[in-house]
Amino acid sequence: MAEKITSRAVDYSQWYIDIVLNAKLADYSPVKGCMVVRPRGYAIWERIQAEYDRRFKETGHQNAYFPLLIPMSFLKKEAEHVEGFAPELAVVTHGGGEELEEPLVIRPTSETIIWSKYKDWIQSWRDLPLLYNQWCSVLRWEKRTRLFLRTAEFLWQEGHTAHETEKDAVEETMRMLDVYREVAERHLCLPVIAGRKSDAEKFAGAVATYCIEAMMQDRKALQAGTSHFLGQNFGKAFEVQFQTRDGGLDYAWATSWGLSTRLIGAIIMTHSDDKGLVLPPSLAQEQAVIVPIYKTDTKSAVLDYAARMEASLKDAGIRVVTDTDDTSSPGWKFAEWEMRGVPVRIEAGPRDMEAGKAVLVRRDTGEKTVIAASEAAVRVRELLDAIQKNLYERAKAFRLANTRDVSDYEEMKAFYGKAGEENEGTATARGGFARALWCGSRECEAKLKAETKVTLRCMPLDDQDHIEGKCALCGSPAKFRAIFARNY
Amino acid sequence: MAEKITSRAVDYSQWYIDIVLNAKLADYSPVKGCMVVRPRGYAIWERIQAEYDRRFKETGHQNAYFPLLIPMSFLKKEAEHVEGFAPELAVVTHGGGEELEEPLVIRPTSETIIWSKYKDWIQSWRDLPLLYNQWCSVLRWEKRTRLFLRTAEFLWQEGHTAHETEKDAVEETMRMLDVYREVAERHLCLPVIAGRKSDAEKFAGAVATYCIEAMMQDRKALQAGTSHFLGQNFGKAFEVQFQTRDGGLDYAWATSWGLSTRLIGAIIMTHSDDKGLVLPPSLAQEQAVIVPIYKTDTKSAVLDYAARMEASLKDAGIRVVTDTDDTSSPGWKFAEWEMRGVPVRIEAGPRDMEAGKAVLVRRDTGEKTVIAASEAAVRVRELLDAIQKNLYERAKAFRLANTRDVSDYEEMKAFYGKAGEENEGTATARGGFARALWCGSRECEAKLKAETKVTLRCMPLDDQDHIEGKCALCGSPAKFRAIFARNY
Repeated sequence: MAEKITSRAVDYSQWYIDIVLNAKLADYSPVKGCMVVRPRGYAIWERIQAEYDRRFKETGHQNAYFPLLIPMSFLKKEAEHVEGFAPELAVVTHGGGEELEEPLVIRPTSETIIWSKYKDWIQSWRDLPLLYNQWCSVLRWEKRTRLFLRTAEFLWQEGHTAHETEKDAVEETMRMLDVYREVAERHLCLPVIAGRKSDAEKFAGAVATYCIEAMMQDRKALQAGTSHFLGQNFGKAFEVQFQTRDGGLDYAWATSWGLSTRLIGAIIMTHSDDKGLVLPPSLAQEQAVIVPIYKTDTKSAVLDYAARMEASLKDAGIRVVTDTDDTSSPGWKFAEWEMRGVPVRIEAGPRDMEAGKAVLVRRDTGEKTVIAASEAAVRVRELLDAIQKNLYERAKAFRLANTRDVSDYEEMKAFYGKAGEENEGTATARGGFARALWCGSRECEAKLKAETKVTLRCMPLDDQDHIEGKCALCGSPAKFRAIFARNY
Repeated sequence: MAEKITSRAVDYSQWYIDIVLNAKLADYSPVKGCMVVRPRGYAIWERIQAEYDRRFKETGHQNAYFPLLIPMSFLKKEAEHVEGFAPELAVVTHGGGEELEEPLVIRPTSETIIWSKYKDWIQSWRDLPLLYNQWCSVLRWEKRTRLFLRTAEFLWQEGHTAHETEKDAVEETMRMLDVYREVAERHLCLPVIAGRKSDAEKFAGAVATYCIEAMMQDRKALQAGTSHFLGQNFGKAFEVQFQTRDGGLDYAWATSWGLSTRLIGAIIMTHSDDKGLVLPPSLAQEQAVIVPIYKTDTKSAVLDYAARMEASLKDAGIRVVTDTDDTSSPGWKFAEWEMRGVPVRIEAGPRDMEAGKAVLVRRDTGEKTVIAASEAAVRVRELLDAIQKNLYERAKAFRLANTRDVSDYEEMKAFYGKAGEENEGTATARGGFARALWCGSRECEAKLKAETKVTLRCMPLDDQDHIEGKCALCGSPAKFRAIFARNY
């Protein structure tokens, strides 16, 4: 299998698709633009869900479920919202054999249907906050799609909260951004930059959009989650008024925040290599695979030996399988399990058995260690922890090594090279994250994007001190420090 | 709140809706026929999901996700399937601002899209079985809807498996039916009859449909889950051929099985009473609520006392809350928590505190017990176990008491009374489960249904011995023993 994977240096996009298909994470759908998430991909999503869901509940949120179908008229109630989503809608015109009086759209996001219900549930400040989340799929018609990264239908969660005050809503927006960052870093091993989007890149209907941005191995940015402060835009559009503590009336303040199966794409593109998938141990369906090596005369003894190791690992809570398939060679198995991204391989043959030993091989570095079989559970656990840590550190070092302070437009263009250069689309393409001062003008951003395909990813929250100097794009006085990159 | 609930003896349907709305389990949607599952309802669904998902995985199944949208042409590939589902379809005709070349339907069930992919994944007997499940929503256009019981969109799981032999597929069909039964009985406290559907009632495209049927308090039946043996119908329709062990070619054998948020309706209608919701402890968001009773001078001491009990219950893994709201009276709180279905209420006032005691009140029977606060965790756990057991036993006894052996058509009609009788739709309506011999003819079934609204629910798997005598409907020689009832 492994030889089917295109090298990153040759074609990064093809390498990515090769991994998704060969590791059986996802597949194309008969309906253009949609995808099938296969069991090995869905198992990753279930672990991502579990970690985020736990944190959502710890921060006071409850899950709910709102209808898939939204009346077209609802979207039109918030002017920017409908403008942003109208071109991407899938429209249901017939139901039960009859033409509908009003067309319904499949939710591209659920602000409108949820706020239409919040109107019924919110009368007084005592009803606030409402801290709801839902796990579901949404649909945004897309022409150019890529498995996990951009598909018409995708799985996600969307949090929708209603608050008494602006301050509460802003705090919620930032709290959930931080939950996004924390789980991404700890469990997905994705170092991310938390920042604010420019007005040009913000969510349709938001006052402000915040995001976490990660760097892929081809040095492009990937937006891994967004948290929106919606002000009173939806409160007003859906007339969600409540009695305030002092007896007045006010519109509820809103946030929404979402992340999706796109994260699986980010994990693949951050950690994997030319042998295949590399997965953080916390997300791997199998954290370790035992490959017993034997001939006919040693088979039974080696399999017993492997089974005892497997039992000891399972007792220690490690997700482990033993590959006892007799129709393929150990070498083939090594390549196969490497392609699938299993973090630790355990090899054990007759001589290992006689010595009471086994060989551990790390998926991330390829490093081999001989261990005593009696210590297997402890040593594998240590190795899983080390891999989890290393994947994060390695990705962070990569990002730092590929981030450059840029002070003027010439330098910016030189850093990225021209769009369409020879090695564009490979892992050796130029560019990365440019850290630069910015004046805040939409025109500067638009010009840069048009000329270089580079976009303003975010204004990092922890890097807005000492803004002194000129905008790196136009030379006007700077107001912000921003991260620029080409992006997914 | 409690006084808003209509009595079961007056109007069973209204009683049901009152509970759903007052306990905030679900709400109506702005889109006709759809529903909003509110957090307290969704929390029940999450626990149902967790129990079933665990059993699905223990029996070797993996979760996956297939697209929401299905080309209309796919449904037409299986003649019975499209005939069954065509009248209920929601059709997407426009996407991304353009009219689609081929209309897409929102999945009413996913056999067709899944088998279109199985064709790609199944080449050899070595690829089998495929044991996949997905949790998602489906949409079947419905005119007459009732929250949880029948809505256009509903949440469910659908298992779709492919097998090498007929025997394997039949075994899978029965295995999953038994998983359905086991979890329904143990965790949902729903006694169910596992049986086979008549041909008239089977799934569109199935060779045979099996089901679990429960009796509600108004003596009507509710189908709580179905497991279908699909033969090679979908294998042939989607040309899923594989190389057999002996080098030949054969079509894959299929099963599918599903259960839905309808189960929440079944739980409500089986266990609840005129005070509100009654929930099995295993599904309750709060298993116990502590209601401290105090005046100003005793408040601080009683709250401390309650907090210590709460901590000891939490340490024991019991989901407990303390109601410290000062704006409502203990009596109001008792009614409110009864309406919400919390299995155990713990009352503690100044005199209880001085004696080191507390009062436990069972939601299912109303029985009160005085306990030592130091034993609270142990005693509450015992009570939760007793309630879980009692709900099941009580429902089973009710079903037995309302099941009658019926030997001819006059007796059948007398048992049910005429449709439209005075007390129809109340908990004191006549009828129940009629256990009767049946000849197997579709005409008999149709006549009974037309004249009495009574349908053949299933042929119980464990009650097909000694079939001797005449069909209770037409007097011809009997072939099966069946359960008849009015149904949801």
